[in-house]
Amino acid sequence: MKLEGRVVIEEFDCEALRGNPLGDPHRRPIPVYVPPGYDESGRRYPVIYWLHGWGGTGLRETNYNPWIPSLPELIDRVIREGAPPAILVMADVFTTYGHSQCINSSATGRYEDAMKELVAYVDARHRTLPSRDHRGLNGKSSGGYGSLVLAMRNPQLFGAVASHSGDMYFEAAYKADFWRAVDVIRKHGGLDGYLRAWREAPKKTDELVRPMVTVVCMAMAYSPNPQRPHGFDLPFDPETGEVDEAVWARWLAWDPVVMAERYAESLRTLRLIYIECGSRDQYNLHHGARILRGRLARLGIRHEYQEFDDDHTSVNYRYVESLRRLCAVLRA
Amino acid sequence: MKLEGRVVIEEFDCEALRGNPLGDPHRRPIPVYVPPGYDESGRRYPVIYWLHGWGGTGLRETNYNPWIPSLPELIDRVIREGAPPAILVMADVFTTYGHSQCINSSATGRYEDAMKELVAYVDARHRTLPSRDHRGLNGKSSGGYGSLVLAMRNPQLFGAVASHSGDMYFEAAYKADFWRAVDVIRKHGGLDGYLRAWREAPKKTDELVRPMVTVVCMAMAYSPNPQRPHGFDLPFDPETGEVDEAVWARWLAWDPVVMAERYAESLRTLRLIYIECGSRDQYNLHHGARILRGRLARLGIRHEYQEFDDDHTSVNYRYVESLRRLCAVLRA
Amino acid sequence: MKLEGRVVIEEFDCEALRGNPLGDPHRRPIPVYVPPGYDESGRRYPVIYWLHGWGGTGLRETNYNPWIPSLPELIDRVIREGAPPAILVMADVFTTYGHSQCINSSATGRYEDAMKELVAYVDARHRTLPSRDHRGLNGKSSGGYGSLVLAMRNPQLFGAVASHSGDMYFEAAYKADFWRAVDVIRKHGGLDGYLRAWREAPKKTDELVRPMVTVVCMAMAYSPNPQRPHGFDLPFDPETGEVDEAVWARWLAWDPVVMAERYAESLRTLRLIYIECGSRDQYNLHHGARILRGRLARLGIRHEYQEFDDDHTSVNYRYVESLRRLCAVLRA
Amino acid sequence: MKLEGRVVIEEFDCEALRGNPLGDPHRRPIPVYVPPGYDESGRRYPVIYWLHGWGGTGLRETNYNPWIPSLPELIDRVIREGAPPAILVMADVFTTYGHSQCINSSATGRYEDAMKELVAYVDARHRTLPSRDHRGLNGKSSGGYGSLVLAMRNPQLFGAVASHSGDMYFEAAYKADFWRAVDVIRKHGGLDGYLRAWREAPKKTDELVRPMVTVVCMAMAYSPNPQRPHGFDLPFDPETGEVDEAVWARWLAWDPVVMAERYAESLRTLRLIYIECGSRDQYNLHHGARILRGRLARLGIRHEYQEFDDDHTSVNYRYVESLRRLCAVLRA
Repeated sequence: MKLEGRVVIEEFDCEALRGNPLGDPHRRPIPVYVPPGYDESGRRYPVIYWLHGWGGTGLRETNYNPWIPSLPELIDRVIREGAPPAILVMADVFTTYGHSQCINSSATGRYEDAMKELVAYVDARHRTLPSRDHRGLNGKSSGGYGSLVLAMRNPQLFGAVASHSGDMYFEAAYKADFWRAVDVIRKHGGLDGYLRAWREAPKKTDELVRPMVTVVCMAMAYSPNPQRPHGFDLPFDPETGEVDEAVWARWLAWDPVVMAERYAESLRTLRLIYIECGSRDQYNLHHGARILRGRLARLGIRHEYQEFDDDHTSVNYRYVESLRRLCAVLRA
Repeated sequence: MKLEGRVVIEEFDCEALRGNPLGDPHRRPIPVYVPPGYDESGRRYPVIYWLHGWGGTGLRETNYNPWIPSLPELIDRVIREGAPPAILVMADVFTTYGHSQCINSSATGRYEDAMKELVAYVDARHRTLPSRDHRGLNGKSSGGYGSLVLAMRNPQLFGAVASHSGDMYFEAAYKADFWRAVDVIRKHGGLDGYLRAWREAPKKTDELVRPMVTVVCMAMAYSPNPQRPHGFDLPFDPETGEVDEAVWARWLAWDPVVMAERYAESLRTLRLIYIECGSRDQYNLHHGARILRGRLARLGIRHEYQEFDDDHTSVNYRYVESLRRLCAVLRA
Repeated sequence: MKLEGRVVIEEFDCEALRGNPLGDPHRRPIPVYVPPGYDESGRRYPVIYWLHGWGGTGLRETNYNPWIPSLPELIDRVIREGAPPAILVMADVFTTYGHSQCINSSATGRYEDAMKELVAYVDARHRTLPSRDHRGLNGKSSGGYGSLVLAMRNPQLFGAVASHSGDMYFEAAYKADFWRAVDVIRKHGGLDGYLRAWREAPKKTDELVRPMVTVVCMAMAYSPNPQRPHGFDLPFDPETGEVDEAVWARWLAWDPVVMAERYAESLRTLRLIYIECGSRDQYNLHHGARILRGRLARLGIRHEYQEFDDDHTSVNYRYVESLRRLCAVLRA
Repeated sequence: MKLEGRVVIEEFDCEALRGNPLGDPHRRPIPVYVPPGYDESGRRYPVIYWLHGWGGTGLRETNYNPWIPSLPELIDRVIREGAPPAILVMADVFTTYGHSQCINSSATGRYEDAMKELVAYVDARHRTLPSRDHRGLNGKSSGGYGSLVLAMRNPQLFGAVASHSGDMYFEAAYKADFWRAVDVIRKHGGLDGYLRAWREAPKKTDELVRPMVTVVCMAMAYSPNPQRPHGFDLPFDPETGEVDEAVWARWLAWDPVVMAERYAESLRTLRLIYIECGSRDQYNLHHGARILRGRLARLGIRHEYQEFDDDHTSVNYRYVESLRRLCAVLRA
């Protein structure tokens, strides 16, 4: 990994995550990319917060792969090609089960709070331009979801947002997969057995992963319930697969296509809303992207939308699109 | 095909299907199996009406396959093994697009009426026991659906019903597949292009078939609309994949798990309700079967339920279960 | 099935198949299509022998499917559209395990002899033009293979040949699948267990079918061995999957791309050699077709070759290509 | 990544790879794990060379994944659990097309020589026990292949070897995939177009990857030919898919199951031969493992063999088996 900028790995000790219910670490390594010239310039820089997808971590975004550029390589390239320099912070919203959706939940922890805390932490330790106009959010998949939701809910903190293949229109993204999940959960003798199988499996097989991605992590985020054994409500009867409409309604309240209207005022203040998705997304997220785009248009909210001929997997090469735009709008 | 009974193929000229909107034939070959002894006995016999699945016809049920027993072979075997003899009528509810769901629709034709007409036709031409107590319905997949719905709506005609892997709980059976269907329909330039591709394809590929099975035929049956170019409303926006809740509500009114309560009185009069499904059904129909079973139990409606370790395909070997039971309860 | 010609089903009692080792029937229903005008004309007609594929039978070729035309429908259409009329005989080379490859084998029976006997039988009972110049062979898959091999070996009987997606270049068609077959056979505890599972399975699943199609039926045909428990040698060690080169050499002696040179003289006498294959054949048969085509060209043997954009499944719509050509070259 | 030992990344400037024909770097980052106690002990340590699989690099073996332990994590755990400490060197035998198979080839470069050079380099810079009795080879997939072949050919350098899911029995591992590769190569207009597509694709799709893994990289390694445009012979005619037996024979000379006999003397000197494979390997490598095991037994060569219920993907959790054994046999 040859960079003109450099990456420093911070040990972020997060108050918000202390004592989180899953016992996940509150100290997290946070890779921070600083652009070429940072050390000498004395200048302050805008900051982009990157939110990894399900099963990722901040650290994983720096992994080397000869054919898949890492986040540091991508931002470095974008700046090398002329974009205004920015700091890129690779946040960490991972849980033992794969992802927190970047929100506060009694089942997983206070991940929205953790993100706010991270902003303060970064501003305190780096020469940032510490204002919402110079602070952006970006992410992929569950992280693309998190970008949008954090931006909607924290307009005071973030002034621009991008989402790559983000979770939205839960009807298509999650519900379409419920019955496959029911089958796998039943196969393991119910939720208890399934969660145990997950934790104990030396290899997380596709069969184990899928219900985690489309159901269990989402239930932990969207329908926590401290009364229940595992701290959350499933959106269906695990015996029959019948949808529990009350739980489902709680999920929908977190669906970006539903939230858009509620948070229209926040969205209007953003200097950039960039949304993209591959048109063959295995999780049906291109349908969600099209619906959100329509909602934004209807609400008269300025945004940019791109669709490209690919699926949900290994689309890192697309990230230059958002990074370039964010560098441009966030610059001093 | 060595049978102890025999099959006669009737040319049923159906009034109800004259001038049907799809231009499908109103004359249909209807195979009728008469049991051994029929010719000599002078007796009257109960009648089972069999409803084929999507893409089937009455005639197809007599096709020879060395490893998949046909309907005549199965009923013949059941009787040979001791079940009380019955006549088996292989009805025909096929349309150009695959299936009518056995209901009346301005988009396809009056298939429920056609079934009633067929009963009269058969009673007029065969030595039947012409009463509801000796008349049963049976079917697979869309035909299993038809069995249940015809029985609910016509308790005066039918006294027993069986359903093999029948369509139910539309949420899981159809909606989970909407977005794949949207992708295929878009690929053909919209509904118009898709329907044309279907009609013109010398081979109905899996890609073409799937949206027909899970969306288009169902829209023709459940949400007809003479105002629309093709005579029906799609349950989603074909551009974005967003569900049209008004159309979807019309579909749900035809969902057996929803209808069960409305038709509880009819269901209570049935001498047999036999429901089964494979526990790995590719269309999620095992979830529907479990939900219907729960509904019937809650309503205090007597029924029999079986689940077996197989999927939706080529489960003819299971039909002996229902045929045996129907022969028993329908006998004189 | 509306035909201008008609189909009569002969009960062919085949001497050659009496006492065959698999206990398969020696009496077989043979559908014979006679063209429009046959009954009145008093004329003699050329005959095309059609050989079904694996898992088929003569009778299955008459099965009704609303979207897949049967053989009688196809020949009828070809003649209606102007081809010189011919009789079409739907031969039966089925065995309990799926197909005989149309050759004599101590493991399955004398199927090449059966075909010769069938020719005499048909000539004796129908107004045929009883000479090789008016007799053709045609078939699909294992039947396409049979067509070519029977024509090579019996130039005195057949004057024209067509093959649709026929087995050839065994290296790609069969050997590439050996290891998947080893896995399945091992899973059933060895050959014995696998054959038992096959016979007893109420449903022949894809997992069971595949090794039958690519290995077991082929071993019965190409490497019979009366010394072995089941009467044939497998082409590999069922424990390790190591290829048995001696057995494999016996297979290759039956590979059309190898046989072509040996039987070049026979092939040169044919009035038509028509070969086609879909360019996405799941059994790699398009590669074989290309290789055979190259061999024929090198040997200076006249032939016609077509490739089309489809796979191995449900390509009935292609049969008009060969039927039209055979009717033309075989006419009086 | 919490380790008791530590990882230092060497910049290995490899003479043998200077001017390699693919223009791949001759300077490579080589992660070297040194065990806990190394810095203080003053002792010399045995060394295990790890060879990554196709598409990997030395550096990739240190990547963080919350569910898939990296090589440093695994060796650290094995030592923590009591195995005698060893140095682990993560070698780099990557090429632009994915892997060199660790051998010298005029088409890719002198990778066997590079490995020998690496041994000298490591011995010069670390407190190693610089003799074959304290030097072992290990690897996965193409790297498991490399381990075996390097050990056979360099008994003076290496005293123990392990292979996880290594390439062997090329008949099953590669040839079974030739025709799928032919289809993909043709789709890109031939080898030239395919290689260009590979290099230019921003994302290496599964369709592009598979022929690289099973054919192209192997041809570069096993059948180089400086006379040919791209420097190697394909093992088949890319138009027809016919196997080129002369080229294929050159490949077989590099097949471990064939080489075993030729290198029996070398193999007999090894203090450990550990071979394992998952019993559902997608590349059929479990068959190769069984065959090699049989060969070794027949040759009276001591070895250890394990098979486990998994496939070819993400089997890092298995590496503790070989690491533990290698640490034990290589210790001072």
